[in-house]
Amino acid sequence: MTTQRQSALKGEITPQMEEVARDEGRGTEDIRVGVAQGVIAIPFNPLHKNCKATGIGRGLKTKVNANIGTSADYPNVEEELKKLKAAVEAKADALMDLSTGGDITAIRRRIIADCPLPLGTVPIYQAIVEDRLTAEGMFEVVEEQAKDGVDFMTIHCGITFESIGRLKKQPRLMDVVSRGGAVLVKWILENKTENPFYQHYDRLLEIALKYDITLSLGDGMRPGSIVDAGDQAQIQELIILGDLTKRAWEAGVQVIIEGPGHVPFNQIEAQIKMQKEICKGAPFYVLGPLPTDVAPGYDHITAAIGGTLAASAGADFLCYVTPTEHLGLPTPEDVKEGVIASRIAGHCADIVKGVPGARDWDVEMSKARKALNWGKQIQLAIDPVKAREIHEKRKGTRGQGLGTGDVCSMCGEFCAMKISSEALKK
Amino acid sequence: MTTQRQSALKGEITPQMEEVARDEGRGTEDIRVGVAQGVIAIPFNPLHKNCKATGIGRGLKTKVNANIGTSADYPNVEEELKKLKAAVEAKADALMDLSTGGDITAIRRRIIADCPLPLGTVPIYQAIVEDRLTAEGMFEVVEEQAKDGVDFMTIHCGITFESIGRLKKQPRLMDVVSRGGAVLVKWILENKTENPFYQHYDRLLEIALKYDITLSLGDGMRPGSIVDAGDQAQIQELIILGDLTKRAWEAGVQVIIEGPGHVPFNQIEAQIKMQKEICKGAPFYVLGPLPTDVAPGYDHITAAIGGTLAASAGADFLCYVTPTEHLGLPTPEDVKEGVIASRIAGHCADIVKGVPGARDWDVEMSKARKALNWGKQIQLAIDPVKAREIHEKRKGTRGQGLGTGDVCSMCGEFCAMKISSEALKK
Repeated sequence: MTTQRQSALKGEITPQMEEVARDEGRGTEDIRVGVAQGVIAIPFNPLHKNCKATGIGRGLKTKVNANIGTSADYPNVEEELKKLKAAVEAKADALMDLSTGGDITAIRRRIIADCPLPLGTVPIYQAIVEDRLTAEGMFEVVEEQAKDGVDFMTIHCGITFESIGRLKKQPRLMDVVSRGGAVLVKWILENKTENPFYQHYDRLLEIALKYDITLSLGDGMRPGSIVDAGDQAQIQELIILGDLTKRAWEAGVQVIIEGPGHVPFNQIEAQIKMQKEICKGAPFYVLGPLPTDVAPGYDHITAAIGGTLAASAGADFLCYVTPTEHLGLPTPEDVKEGVIASRIAGHCADIVKGVPGARDWDVEMSKARKALNWGKQIQLAIDPVKAREIHEKRKGTRGQGLGTGDVCSMCGEFCAMKISSEALKK
Repeated sequence: MTTQRQSALKGEITPQMEEVARDEGRGTEDIRVGVAQGVIAIPFNPLHKNCKATGIGRGLKTKVNANIGTSADYPNVEEELKKLKAAVEAKADALMDLSTGGDITAIRRRIIADCPLPLGTVPIYQAIVEDRLTAEGMFEVVEEQAKDGVDFMTIHCGITFESIGRLKKQPRLMDVVSRGGAVLVKWILENKTENPFYQHYDRLLEIALKYDITLSLGDGMRPGSIVDAGDQAQIQELIILGDLTKRAWEAGVQVIIEGPGHVPFNQIEAQIKMQKEICKGAPFYVLGPLPTDVAPGYDHITAAIGGTLAASAGADFLCYVTPTEHLGLPTPEDVKEGVIASRIAGHCADIVKGVPGARDWDVEMSKARKALNWGKQIQLAIDPVKAREIHEKRKGTRGQGLGTGDVCSMCGEFCAMKISSEALKK
């Protein structure tokens, strides 16, 4: 078994690098160099059959992840498979199974079998639910999940005595809002023992190497309120993750770094740039960020606001947030809304990043608008189904169809583009 | 009749300045000075009865405007009154009646009678619909609307031979997407006559002075595609508006400047700062801006992304965009979605701006979250009705209510905050 990173370092182009290069409109050598430098990750466990190779990192299209998974209140896997379908249809780039209810292993296997995208997990969730919270138990769960074909795993290696010390030194409004992070804080303090994922990091690297698991180094100390953003605990954890990134790279393991969280809008750019510096350009995976705490029910919008700025500043991978965040587990419809909102954020940022093809999409849409070509506008829309639905529903009493040249019900005959383009032609 | 600006210049505090000061938690003298400097506008026509005095500008809470109004396809005023109600309930700060269908005067009067917020119009729409597109006709419409109690008016004074010359010199993908702008371009070119609102600007100022109409100097040249942003025509118009701002201030008339439009995310900050410079700090009123063209059906989200950055950079007034933008006329539900999305943007920016009380809202919400106090979280949510609805719907099979201490269906017993705060207490 050779990891993507090991191949890249040896100068070898893998089929996955070729697939990424094709998708991104880039040269295969560019992708190989990015993987070798660590600035691109391709989460791809060969045991996950029919998985699309997806590149995450510098110079590539900003990617979107959708979280699904059961909880104790909603343990039904069929509902989660509907969410998987909704996420794939809405064009998410990756999926995480965060199940904490029902038979975790069986659910994961069902999800992996159906999932054409890189699949991530947070192994400690299974360890919590199945009461396997020993060092041995945690590593066993990691390896079991790797054997099932999981492509990337969130591991909260940066929750240590050192970062917990910072948390105690500068108390927070919201303590720890990461589930994995909170459980590890509790475990470390109760057992008076260092975090096994930190203390025995080499064992983690061995498993990652064996299955080519991309480590997504978790941000257990992420702020859960904008007032906690950028505090000692958060930055201390990041410094630790910077060290661990280097060790993973040296071992031939791919790494992604996870980031906040709730962050005021004017701190986001600095946080992203600092992370990129401390973690030597490793791909950055952000949850939101959410620049306000007050919008439960609309946190997909809040996340799109923060995500656009984060990705414009260099974040590579956006974890979606759904409208139900902070309120309850999402429905398949919420999953769709969350993916689309994050894709809008990613695309706005890709225009800024100069990602090949990004701006061309807007040019095509503008041309279709100028031509009053409704069929084309709808076809080009980020969600053609919804765009068609709205246009049809509101097309007006005069019954315009979707042909070329018809105006919409907003302006009717007073269509600015029609008037101005005719006037300027003369 | 003395305008707010004239009073401010004479050192007089008006009841409206007092109302604004109370709402904003600021001193009345601060407000007076802002109005005298022109950096704050209080659109308030004394003929608009029961209108709330609202301050727009430097140091104040970012305000949100909702556009409503009939079109030829939807001429029914009752539907627009429902939208008015939806906008007020969603806590919009101002309303514009952009009606172009049915009896424009009768509709406007009905809307003004029901509208407790500053009401704006675009008088040229009525001139177009009623075929009164002569210099005389245009000014008559302006005065008729002023007499009805309109508080602020969009007038496209910057569409001139000079700015049209720039449009011809550097052709655009989307020509002119402002309806008022497009009609004036056509009128100027066909009649080979300068824009009456520019040529006879003093006449406009006289009417504005007589009724204390706040002039919202329109951005007829706003880009309608991200690829057109920041071009010669747009900036030329802005330069003209800068001159006209000064003339209005000298005459004792309040001014707001309108801005884009479709603008790539990385151009927004510069555009806002340039505008503020060219227009000497006059309040800036942006439509969006939209950092991508590809998301019809979700343009309230796109506008929230651009609006947060714009307002963080100094924009004072956000014109909402609804999910139906670019597709058709909005419904009352779309109006609500649009207002909430813009309010999220405004609030994220108010945290950045350091507006008094803005961050406190987030602190309160975070405290309620930490306490797992669901009733309080819902009460503090930007849309308590929706937050309650989602939480109730997804509260889980164990039937948690809205008391203190209950967990939500997302994490259930594995609640990070509960686990970490208990662990850290020990």
